[in-house]
Amino acid sequence: MAVAAVDHDLFVELGRQLRVDAIRAADFAGSGHPTSSMSAADLMAVLLARHLRYDFEASRNPANDHLIFSKGHASPLLYAMYVAAGAVSPEELRWYRSSGSRLQGHPTPALPWVDAATGALGQGLGIGAGIALAGQRLDHRDFHVWVLCGDGELAEGSMWEAFEHAGYERLHNLIAIIDVNRLGQRGPTRHGWDTAAYARRIGAFGWHTIEIDGHDVDQIDAAYAEAKDSNLPTAILARTRKGKGVREVENAEGAHGKPVPDAEEAVAELGGPGSVRVEVASPEYEAPRHPDLHSLSIPTYERDGRKVATRTAFGQALAMLGHARSDLVVLDADVSDSTRTSYFAREHPDRFFECYIAEQQMTATAVGMSVRGWLPFAATFAAFWSRAFDFVRMASIGGADLCLAGSHAGVSIGPDGPSQMGLEDLAAFRALWRSTVLYPCDANQTVHLTAAMAEHSGIRYLRTTREDLPVLYGPEETFSVGGSKVLRRSDADDVTIVAAGITVHEALRAADVLADSGIRARVVDLYSIKPVDVATLRAAAADTGRIVTVEDHWPQGGLGDAVLDAFTGATAMPAVIKLGVLALPGSATPTEQLQHAGIDADSVVEAAQELMAV
Amino acid sequence: MAVAAVDHDLFVELGRQLRVDAIRAADFAGSGHPTSSMSAADLMAVLLARHLRYDFEASRNPANDHLIFSKGHASPLLYAMYVAAGAVSPEELRWYRSSGSRLQGHPTPALPWVDAATGALGQGLGIGAGIALAGQRLDHRDFHVWVLCGDGELAEGSMWEAFEHAGYERLHNLIAIIDVNRLGQRGPTRHGWDTAAYARRIGAFGWHTIEIDGHDVDQIDAAYAEAKDSNLPTAILARTRKGKGVREVENAEGAHGKPVPDAEEAVAELGGPGSVRVEVASPEYEAPRHPDLHSLSIPTYERDGRKVATRTAFGQALAMLGHARSDLVVLDADVSDSTRTSYFAREHPDRFFECYIAEQQMTATAVGMSVRGWLPFAATFAAFWSRAFDFVRMASIGGADLCLAGSHAGVSIGPDGPSQMGLEDLAAFRALWRSTVLYPCDANQTVHLTAAMAEHSGIRYLRTTREDLPVLYGPEETFSVGGSKVLRRSDADDVTIVAAGITVHEALRAADVLADSGIRARVVDLYSIKPVDVATLRAAAADTGRIVTVEDHWPQGGLGDAVLDAFTGATAMPAVIKLGVLALPGSATPTEQLQHAGIDADSVVEAAQELMAV
Repeated sequence: MAVAAVDHDLFVELGRQLRVDAIRAADFAGSGHPTSSMSAADLMAVLLARHLRYDFEASRNPANDHLIFSKGHASPLLYAMYVAAGAVSPEELRWYRSSGSRLQGHPTPALPWVDAATGALGQGLGIGAGIALAGQRLDHRDFHVWVLCGDGELAEGSMWEAFEHAGYERLHNLIAIIDVNRLGQRGPTRHGWDTAAYARRIGAFGWHTIEIDGHDVDQIDAAYAEAKDSNLPTAILARTRKGKGVREVENAEGAHGKPVPDAEEAVAELGGPGSVRVEVASPEYEAPRHPDLHSLSIPTYERDGRKVATRTAFGQALAMLGHARSDLVVLDADVSDSTRTSYFAREHPDRFFECYIAEQQMTATAVGMSVRGWLPFAATFAAFWSRAFDFVRMASIGGADLCLAGSHAGVSIGPDGPSQMGLEDLAAFRALWRSTVLYPCDANQTVHLTAAMAEHSGIRYLRTTREDLPVLYGPEETFSVGGSKVLRRSDADDVTIVAAGITVHEALRAADVLADSGIRARVVDLYSIKPVDVATLRAAAADTGRIVTVEDHWPQGGLGDAVLDAFTGATAMPAVIKLGVLALPGSATPTEQLQHAGIDADSVVEAAQELMAV
Repeated sequence: MAVAAVDHDLFVELGRQLRVDAIRAADFAGSGHPTSSMSAADLMAVLLARHLRYDFEASRNPANDHLIFSKGHASPLLYAMYVAAGAVSPEELRWYRSSGSRLQGHPTPALPWVDAATGALGQGLGIGAGIALAGQRLDHRDFHVWVLCGDGELAEGSMWEAFEHAGYERLHNLIAIIDVNRLGQRGPTRHGWDTAAYARRIGAFGWHTIEIDGHDVDQIDAAYAEAKDSNLPTAILARTRKGKGVREVENAEGAHGKPVPDAEEAVAELGGPGSVRVEVASPEYEAPRHPDLHSLSIPTYERDGRKVATRTAFGQALAMLGHARSDLVVLDADVSDSTRTSYFAREHPDRFFECYIAEQQMTATAVGMSVRGWLPFAATFAAFWSRAFDFVRMASIGGADLCLAGSHAGVSIGPDGPSQMGLEDLAAFRALWRSTVLYPCDANQTVHLTAAMAEHSGIRYLRTTREDLPVLYGPEETFSVGGSKVLRRSDADDVTIVAAGITVHEALRAADVLADSGIRARVVDLYSIKPVDVATLRAAAADTGRIVTVEDHWPQGGLGDAVLDAFTGATAMPAVIKLGVLALPGSATPTEQLQHAGIDADSVVEAAQELMAV
């Protein structure tokens, strides 16, 4: 494909300008990744000047293309593009990486044009695939998703989850631009400039691949045109030189992640400061879609002695929520029959996404769909959320709105053994920025909390249980994020038992046994693990002075620690015994497991008696 | 390759027997995965009867092959193999999945022949690759590593990290047997029986691939012979039928993860109970290698005003440890110049393994090397350990001995922003079975703790800091797992400040400021976050009644929660203020970051004053 001379020259000039601005930004900051920016500058110049369709004045225009820097450390290049597009003033680059600046070391949605936080490598392509899938299967729009990837990050398995996912779904609107500059942080990558090695691999996953010289603007331009026309997702393998254009750092080891030694000289070598600006093609403005909202008809459960697993109630609630909200989408990682998202899948097949056994890509797809304004619920076993922990971490940093559910929590799953038991999920999800952690103990509560999750923001996690459990609450009872329920109380309680999920039932049994021996136990169902109901816990401490916490989780970082935290901040502390899983479980029945773990009713009784003896 | 008729018949008979025993085991248990076992029974029959070289009487014989069930849920098949080999009595199968049984729902090293815990899919191949790499690069032995994989788990990106790693390293001693039964838990996999789709992908990663009918024992036998001869790692793509041999469940959806409906009828359909046993070829016994141990000459640092980053001291200690212990190996994920494992790499290149940007495979390689008796130290940024969290979780369940180091912890890294800051690592590592969590604040302490890690067991985590810090301790000072140091104390302290890592320096500054206003602050350096020095904390609480904790981590699950935990168990509680990172950081200088996060000296002073006012 021929490129008009005027375009060719503009591309070259703009590439030069992007390099200059990237170098200067890092120089102002005294840190950053100019060399990783310079390798991709020509790629981004051609994209910005001709192929990207983006309205910088209306980042929420649903007709916009999406541009994701999976290699987030090339932020100086991204910000230089914003300058070239007129969205950011050249002066603002002076604040790159400074306190309070939105031009952070790695891109975050603090900038309106950034869809998702990147910087942990291997995540941007998966998020792009999620956006592209939303475009095809939910939004039915023909925007493109452009993802700038590094070659180093192709070592991350998550990239191959994304390639597989996008290839299988034939996401022709997804274009991966891979900046093969052959140098990682420490030194050469595995395959160096062997773009054919990458093309073979990516092609095998059902992608169209194009190998080019990443500094030849005509080849770049032709590759983009070909990619846009492809009926498959396209990967452009661009052979580039890190630090391109500045002799001292070009293709040099040891020049990663630091300003060029002499920025002024480098800028001069590139032909001087310049001020090339481009008009970015903008799609016509269209208003964002608004979801249809209907009143929610929730499933209810009677206290008639029948038992219902909280995972089942979650699945049933989710199916009903799907009727109430047209923007709700559900994802699962090949365990929908266990997590019970299968109920949603049956009633709303168009909004259910099977992600196969790929928890990282499931999370990335969810993030991508949330970027497009959908509300994703994603589910797998609680234990397997540990597989996607870095993705959830980055989603929380990026402010993504995700509802996540983990089933089969705790030792109470029984014979499957420890590999299938979520015993660290409360700790992990609590330790995330602006996260919400919920852990219901009965069916009606689960329904309410599932509905509450949908209304909340940030990362919300719901922990469900495999075993069928008695229905404790009437359907009329209400529950809120940050709340708790006092299930037993008297005017003269001796001790408080704080539990959640399956241990609430153990706590109630323990309270009965204690009552027989004249010990009055208050029982608190702490279904909201984060935020925690400080007032109720402090009142219980004031009234009883003694607290037993009991949880189906390791003793670290979960419910017990959340309870202790309620007594920080210059308040009076009660005496506390924390019960959590004592020892590495093996296989056993659920009842045996609770007993061996030291979290059954008998263990609670013993702990309460020990506190009474103090 | 022709198979003698007698062998052919034995293979077929053994395959039948393995199915029978798998069915019966799951029937005894009332749960388990017989159908996922039956698809792979012929594959394992031929392996056991002819190709595996394994001494069941001496599982530690270093000449043994290794067999890993990456699809750990097929444990009934694995245990049936042990029965056929005479290692386990047929009666023991009755205890499958029962309380106290070593025949757990998923294999763990509770059995002497199991190298690593599996059951979280997508991990066994990577561990096998680690064992194979140890065989080639460390042990220089010609054993084979056989890994039985599911087709469903090929969706996990970690499998492709393993394929890439093994292909690049040309691990010809690694053989992946992929049981393509086309059915996942919920239903069909992406590619069904299209073994060519898998062969294309895996072949592109530099593997030799063979596609066979997984129920044709002659084809299986020939494939194993070919694989053993290959100079590349080999993947055998075996087309199989889930539930093979029993009409009611064969190739049927909805038959995953449960006993066959009528075990007696199924056994009859397979030709009756039977009792086929085989003699497994055993290599000659060789004694395990013993490491050369020399006395450790540790690097020391003077308190002369120079600053040293704890990551630097870690790297220097590790290089020295490498001289003292010949069994020490080091792995890094392309950031050795940042984590400072580069010092070890320079001095011990034969025992340094570059894992590129693939934290999951790095962990799996470490597990594999530990299986072979090496002591692995693996390092990356603290934040990026979240990428490998499920692998570390499984390693802890399997009792693996791993030393892990996370650098660039906390907001104090400065301008790079939140994606690069480990702010959840303490919570994650505390919530692991039998884990040790260490967090040094100065160079001499780091050296001692690095040496102590090597002597400890289980999962050990060392958190290091990017910034250069003053040397606080003399080289003669000692430090132990579970210990702490009281840096300031008087006979009449008013308040205790508990800190670790970079916040120790803030705590000392705060103590000085407080002293000026007449408040005597005890300062505890809690460098062992798990286990925690309960005695020192309780003494401080008894003496001062007031504690301020301060950590460069989210307030959940880290040092503050570890301190609170020391006051559980019916003991008196002090008044506590917990300081942790308050808000989502952006870019800023390290000093600004500590201030914005509310964990600098001023914040500590304020908290102490608040406690004094109570």
